[in-house]
Amino acid sequence: MIGIDWGTTSFRAYRLDAQGAVLDSLDREGGILTVPSGGFPEALRAAIGPWLAAGETRVLLCGMVGSRQGWQEAPYLPCPAGPAEIAAAVVPLAFEGATCRLVPGLTARDAAGVPDVMRGEETKLVGLLAVLGGAEALVCLPGTHSKWARLAGGRIAGFATQFTGETRAVLLQHSILGRLAEPGPASDAAFLRGVRRAREPGGLLHHLFGTRALGLLGDLAPADTASYLSGLLIGHELQAVLAEGAPAGPIHLAGSETLARAYALAFAEHGLGYRRHADDIVARGLALIAETIPWP
Amino acid sequence: MIGIDWGTTSFRAYRLDAQGAVLDSLDREGGILTVPSGGFPEALRAAIGPWLAAGETRVLLCGMVGSRQGWQEAPYLPCPAGPAEIAAAVVPLAFEGATCRLVPGLTARDAAGVPDVMRGEETKLVGLLAVLGGAEALVCLPGTHSKWARLAGGRIAGFATQFTGETRAVLLQHSILGRLAEPGPASDAAFLRGVRRAREPGGLLHHLFGTRALGLLGDLAPADTASYLSGLLIGHELQAVLAEGAPAGPIHLAGSETLARAYALAFAEHGLGYRRHADDIVARGLALIAETIPWP
Repeated sequence: MIGIDWGTTSFRAYRLDAQGAVLDSLDREGGILTVPSGGFPEALRAAIGPWLAAGETRVLLCGMVGSRQGWQEAPYLPCPAGPAEIAAAVVPLAFEGATCRLVPGLTARDAAGVPDVMRGEETKLVGLLAVLGGAEALVCLPGTHSKWARLAGGRIAGFATQFTGETRAVLLQHSILGRLAEPGPASDAAFLRGVRRAREPGGLLHHLFGTRALGLLGDLAPADTASYLSGLLIGHELQAVLAEGAPAGPIHLAGSETLARAYALAFAEHGLGYRRHADDIVARGLALIAETIPWP
Repeated sequence: MIGIDWGTTSFRAYRLDAQGAVLDSLDREGGILTVPSGGFPEALRAAIGPWLAAGETRVLLCGMVGSRQGWQEAPYLPCPAGPAEIAAAVVPLAFEGATCRLVPGLTARDAAGVPDVMRGEETKLVGLLAVLGGAEALVCLPGTHSKWARLAGGRIAGFATQFTGETRAVLLQHSILGRLAEPGPASDAAFLRGVRRAREPGGLLHHLFGTRALGLLGDLAPADTASYLSGLLIGHELQAVLAEGAPAGPIHLAGSETLARAYALAFAEHGLGYRRHADDIVARGLALIAETIPWP
């Protein structure tokens, strides 16, 4: 079968054998933002045509391809949800030459009843459920929008999103904080200084302005600004998560090398245990969901 | 005399009599960002030439015109500082046809020793000191960068900046939160919903993403997004300030009509007393500092 994680800005495809092992993979730009209206079947054929020609007939897709801006909207499934509920809610896609199914996103509500949403990460979480068994676990999936999920009883019990990555990007690109920043190698020392600053009083909005004040007064090197800002924002994300209760076991962390490394540094600074998982855990989730679907 | 508040994006000038009453005023665009290198004397003459021709010989300037990006840098004065210290630290400017002096900005350090800076607001605070006498007071000056200052013993004891206004602007203009927003009249109900949301657990970065989730699930009208986001950010600013201790008396509030009204709504939602002051309190501060300077 073929498993695809089609996000806003990225396209990742895996050719999987019957045991879910990756035979071949593609990782390219060409996220849904680059696909013209009605152009999804053609874009898919262009990407995986050779695998279809080699005899693959089943394609399972997850990610923003199932959003209103994607190929077709797959309604959100409420938490708690496990592999069985997710597999039962896949949506068929019209595509000539293969049977295509779309994984639904998930919704959750926080203690105050405010909703949250994910698309794509649910499939990574299904992969992690297989790795971790039915044990309770806290998972951190860093990204443009970081997802923190609780796994329990073999299902995704709930999750909360943190707007950390996108906030960092717009502040660096468009605010006065970015005007102080100069390009330079990532600095672990500046990052950790930001993580520690997040533990002090004043609030995130005060700490953000402090980045400028430190720069103006020569207390923060321009080349360290971006690393400090990352530490500040990830530190505040972590403070908010920890305020809901200390994790009972290690935090399970899966994301790109750069982000996972940064989060791991922040966890260590807080004395928190963690366990890193490969970012392509999504392939495992796709294989597991596909196993449960009644394909024609 | 002539008093000028020359900011990043605005230029306000006041012609003042010997008692500090405003005889005439100018409020225009033409902030320091619009002035070419070396062009400050010419820009000043273009703005206040008629007043100079009418016999004014003393000009006192405050604001970002005294920053590194302005006419000339006036070194920061550390808090605590009052009218006497500020007047003693004014910087002379070379200008033909009048005696020009520049008000210094202030620095402060928070409990953790991290620095903060202001330029222009110190002059508003001097104006408020005159109104309030020597009583202890908490002052909120909302703006692109909101300033919260403590007045005590007739001086500015300290202050902290919150990056609220600029964060709101870049998120609305450049993040996915802005893509959901549609223009519409400001909504007090949506604003207060955001203020209340800020009191719930989860942290600002989680609440920001919630703006998107609420919009996606039809729980927040696109035309209400900007008001909700304002409430969320001002609410978090207020939470951070209150975490340092409840104010002993009313919060003294001076800012533009739109911003001061929004902050007043948030204060009332929190059951906090406040007293509004005119935004041109800066003219009073300029007059008071000018009184103390030994003009040639």
